[in-house]
Amino acid sequence: MIANTPQPPYYAVIFTSERTDEDSGYAEMAQKMLELAQKQPGILDVESAREELGITVSYWRNLDSIKHWKNNVDHIQAREKGRNTWYRKFKTRIALVESDYHFHNI
Amino acid sequence: MIANTPQPPYYAVIFTSERTDEDSGYAEMAQKMLELAQKQPGILDVESAREELGITVSYWRNLDSIKHWKNNVDHIQAREKGRNTWYRKFKTRIALVESDYHFHNI
Repeated sequence: MIANTPQPPYYAVIFTSERTDEDSGYAEMAQKMLELAQKQPGILDVESAREELGITVSYWRNLDSIKHWKNNVDHIQAREKGRNTWYRKFKTRIALVESDYHFHNI
Repeated sequence: MIANTPQPPYYAVIFTSERTDEDSGYAEMAQKMLELAQKQPGILDVESAREELGITVSYWRNLDSIKHWKNNVDHIQAREKGRNTWYRKFKTRIALVESDYHFHNI
Protein backbone atom coordinates (compact mmCIF):
# COMPACT_ATOMS: atom_id res chain seq x y z
CA MET A 1 0.00 0.00 0.00
CA ILE A 2 1.12 3.52 -0.78
CA ALA A 3 1.96 5.22 2.51
CA ASN A 4 -0.62 7.53 3.98
CA THR A 5 1.17 10.75 4.90
CA PRO A 6 0.04 14.26 5.86
CA GLN A 7 0.87 17.50 4.05
CA PRO A 8 4.66 18.03 3.90
CA PRO A 9 6.99 18.80 5.51
CA TYR A 10 7.76 15.47 7.18
CA TYR A 11 10.73 13.10 7.10
CA ALA A 12 11.51 9.97 5.06
CA VAL A 13 14.07 7.30 5.99
CA ILE A 14 15.04 5.50 2.78
CA PHE A 15 16.61 2.13 3.67
CA THR A 16 18.05 0.31 0.64
CA SER A 17 19.59 -3.13 1.08
CA GLU A 18 21.13 -6.13 -0.65
CA ARG A 19 20.61 -9.38 1.23
CA THR A 20 22.97 -12.29 1.84
CA ASP A 21 21.78 -15.85 1.07
CA GLU A 22 21.24 -16.40 4.80
CA ASP A 23 17.54 -16.59 5.64
CA SER A 24 17.57 -17.73 9.29
CA GLY A 25 14.85 -15.75 11.02
CA TYR A 26 14.92 -12.86 8.54
CA ALA A 27 11.24 -12.77 7.55
CA GLU A 28 10.11 -13.03 11.19
CA MET A 29 12.46 -10.26 12.30
CA ALA A 30 11.51 -8.01 9.38
CA GLN A 31 7.82 -8.42 10.24
CA LYS A 32 8.48 -7.85 13.96
CA MET A 33 10.47 -4.67 13.23
CA LEU A 34 7.75 -3.39 10.88
CA GLU A 35 5.11 -3.86 13.59
CA LEU A 36 7.35 -2.30 16.23
CA ALA A 37 8.19 0.68 13.99
CA GLN A 38 4.49 1.31 13.42
CA LYS A 39 3.98 1.68 17.18
CA GLN A 40 6.68 4.32 17.61
CA PRO A 41 5.87 7.92 18.47
CA GLY A 42 6.03 10.10 15.37
CA ILE A 43 5.75 7.30 12.80
CA LEU A 44 3.48 8.20 9.87
CA ASP A 45 3.60 5.08 7.67
CA VAL A 46 5.93 2.59 5.95
CA GLU A 47 6.32 1.41 2.33
CA SER A 48 8.38 -1.58 1.24
CA ALA A 49 9.29 -3.61 -1.86
CA ARG A 50 12.03 -6.14 -2.60
CA GLU A 51 13.41 -7.66 -5.80
CA GLU A 52 17.20 -7.93 -6.09
CA LEU A 53 17.23 -4.73 -4.13
CA GLY A 54 15.07 -4.06 -1.08
CA ILE A 55 13.70 -0.57 -0.54
CA THR A 56 11.87 0.35 2.65
CA VAL A 57 10.77 3.94 3.15
CA SER A 58 9.47 4.89 6.59
CA TYR A 59 7.88 8.30 7.10
CA TRP A 60 8.23 10.26 10.34
CA ARG A 61 6.93 13.46 11.84
CA ASN A 62 10.40 14.85 12.65
CA LEU A 63 14.07 14.00 13.30
CA ASP A 64 13.48 13.37 17.00
CA SER A 65 11.08 10.54 16.27
CA ILE A 66 13.65 8.98 13.89
CA LYS A 67 16.34 9.24 16.58
CA HIS A 68 14.02 7.70 19.17
CA TRP A 69 13.42 4.68 16.89
CA LYS A 70 17.14 4.40 16.14
CA ASN A 71 17.78 4.07 19.89
CA ASN A 72 15.09 1.44 20.49
CA VAL A 73 16.80 -1.56 22.13
CA ASP A 74 15.04 -4.25 20.06
CA HIS A 75 15.80 -2.26 16.91
CA ILE A 76 19.48 -2.01 17.87
CA GLN A 77 19.65 -5.79 18.31
CA ALA A 78 17.90 -6.38 14.97
CA ARG A 79 20.34 -4.04 13.20
CA GLU A 80 23.28 -5.88 14.78
CA LYS A 81 21.94 -9.19 13.46
CA GLY A 82 21.29 -7.51 10.11
CA ARG A 83 24.92 -6.47 9.79
CA ASN A 84 26.23 -9.86 10.93
CA THR A 85 23.86 -12.12 9.03
CA TRP A 86 21.22 -10.84 6.64
CA TYR A 87 22.65 -7.88 4.77
CA ARG A 88 25.56 -7.77 2.38
CA LYS A 89 25.17 -4.02 1.98
CA PHE A 90 22.77 -1.35 3.00
CA LYS A 91 22.41 2.39 2.81
CA THR A 92 20.18 4.62 4.94
CA ARG A 93 19.24 8.11 3.83
CA ILE A 94 17.43 10.66 6.00
CA ALA A 95 15.45 13.10 3.89
CA LEU A 96 13.08 16.02 4.46
CA VAL A 97 9.99 15.63 2.24
CA GLU A 98 9.29 19.11 0.93
CA SER A 99 6.42 18.45 -1.47
CA ASP A 100 4.32 15.62 -2.85
CA TYR A 101 1.54 14.93 -5.34
CA HIS A 102 -0.56 11.92 -6.09
CA PHE A 103 -2.81 10.28 -8.65
CA HIS A 104 -5.73 7.94 -8.04
CA ASN A 105 -7.56 6.42 -11.00
CA ILE A 106 -11.12 5.79 -9.82
CA MET B 1 22.13 -2.04 -7.01
CA ILE B 2 22.21 0.44 -4.17
CA ALA B 3 22.41 3.92 -5.70
CA ASN B 4 25.78 5.59 -5.81
CA THR B 5 25.33 9.09 -4.42
CA PRO B 6 27.72 11.82 -3.24
CA GLN B 7 27.86 13.40 0.21
CA PRO B 8 24.51 15.00 1.10
CA PRO B 9 22.79 17.32 0.55
CA TYR B 10 21.14 16.17 -2.66
CA TYR B 11 17.53 15.42 -3.64
CA ALA B 12 15.47 12.20 -3.78
CA VAL B 13 12.29 11.71 -5.79
CA ILE B 14 10.37 8.83 -4.19
CA PHE B 15 7.85 7.46 -6.71
CA THR B 16 5.52 4.85 -5.20
CA SER B 17 2.95 3.13 -7.39
CA GLU B 18 0.26 0.46 -7.60
CA ARG B 19 -0.17 -0.98 -11.10
CA THR B 20 -3.28 -1.91 -13.02
CA ASP B 21 -3.52 -5.35 -14.67
CA GLU B 22 -2.77 -3.74 -18.03
CA ASP B 23 0.70 -4.66 -19.24
CA SER B 24 0.72 -3.32 -22.83
CA GLY B 25 4.13 -1.81 -23.34
CA TYR B 26 4.77 -1.14 -19.67
CA ALA B 27 8.12 -2.93 -19.28
CA GLU B 28 9.51 -1.36 -22.45
CA MET B 29 8.42 2.12 -21.42
CA ALA B 30 9.75 1.70 -17.87
CA GLN B 31 13.13 0.63 -19.26
CA LYS B 32 13.15 3.47 -21.78
CA MET B 33 12.33 6.05 -19.10
CA LEU B 34 15.01 4.63 -16.79
CA GLU B 35 17.63 4.98 -19.54
CA LEU B 36 16.41 8.46 -20.44
CA ALA B 37 16.41 9.60 -16.80
CA GLN B 38 19.99 8.42 -16.42
CA LYS B 39 21.05 10.73 -19.25
CA GLN B 40 19.49 13.86 -17.71
CA PRO B 41 21.61 16.70 -16.36
CA GLY B 42 21.86 16.50 -12.57
CA ILE B 43 20.83 12.84 -12.23
CA LEU B 44 22.90 10.98 -9.61
CA ASP B 45 21.45 7.45 -9.70
CA VAL B 46 18.20 5.43 -9.52
CA GLU B 47 17.01 2.57 -7.29
CA SER B 48 13.93 0.46 -7.95
CA ALA B 49 12.00 -2.54 -6.59
CA ARG B 50 8.49 -3.87 -7.16
CA GLU B 51 6.30 -6.39 -5.34
CA GLU B 52 2.63 -5.44 -4.83
CA LEU B 53 3.96 -1.94 -4.48
CA GLY B 54 6.56 -0.40 -6.77
CA ILE B 55 9.12 1.99 -5.29
CA THR B 56 11.52 3.91 -7.52
CA VAL B 57 13.85 6.43 -5.92
CA SER B 58 15.80 8.70 -8.24
CA TYR B 59 18.51 10.93 -6.82
CA TRP B 60 19.26 14.40 -8.20
CA ARG B 61 21.76 17.16 -7.66
CA ASN B 62 19.11 19.86 -7.07
CA LEU B 63 15.48 20.90 -7.65
CA ASP B 64 16.26 22.43 -11.05
CA SER B 65 17.41 19.09 -12.44
CA ILE B 66 14.19 17.46 -11.16
CA LYS B 67 12.10 20.17 -12.81
CA HIS B 68 14.03 19.78 -16.07
CA TRP B 69 13.26 16.02 -16.11
CA LYS B 70 9.61 16.67 -15.24
CA ASN B 71 9.36 18.88 -18.35
CA ASN B 72 11.02 16.38 -20.72
CA VAL B 73 8.57 15.76 -23.58
CA ASP B 74 9.05 11.98 -23.74
CA HIS B 75 8.64 11.82 -19.96
CA ILE B 76 5.42 13.85 -20.13
CA GLN B 77 4.00 11.42 -22.72
CA ALA B 78 5.03 8.42 -20.60
CA ARG B 79 3.36 9.91 -17.52
CA GLU B 80 0.17 10.52 -19.52
CA LYS B 81 0.11 6.86 -20.59
CA GLY B 82 0.90 5.89 -16.99
CA ARG B 83 -2.15 7.71 -15.68
CA ASN B 84 -4.41 6.38 -18.44
CA THR B 85 -3.23 2.78 -18.56
CA TRP B 86 -0.60 1.38 -16.21
CA TYR B 87 -1.12 2.93 -12.78
CA ARG B 88 -4.05 2.59 -10.48
CA LYS B 89 -2.45 4.95 -7.97
CA PHE B 90 0.83 6.67 -7.50
CA LYS B 91 2.44 9.16 -5.16
CA THR B 92 5.54 11.25 -5.82
CA ARG B 93 7.50 12.82 -2.98
CA ILE B 94 10.32 15.31 -3.41
CA ALA B 95 12.78 15.16 -0.51
CA LEU B 96 16.05 16.79 0.47
CA VAL B 97 18.51 14.11 1.64
CA GLU B 98 20.23 15.64 4.67
CA SER B 99 22.38 12.73 5.84
CA ASP B 100 23.18 9.12 5.02
CA TYR B 101 25.24 6.20 6.26
CA HIS B 102 26.05 2.82 4.83
CA PHE B 103 27.26 -0.66 5.64
CA HIS B 104 29.23 -3.02 3.42
CA ASN B 105 30.07 -6.53 4.65
CA ILE B 106 33.30 -7.50 2.87
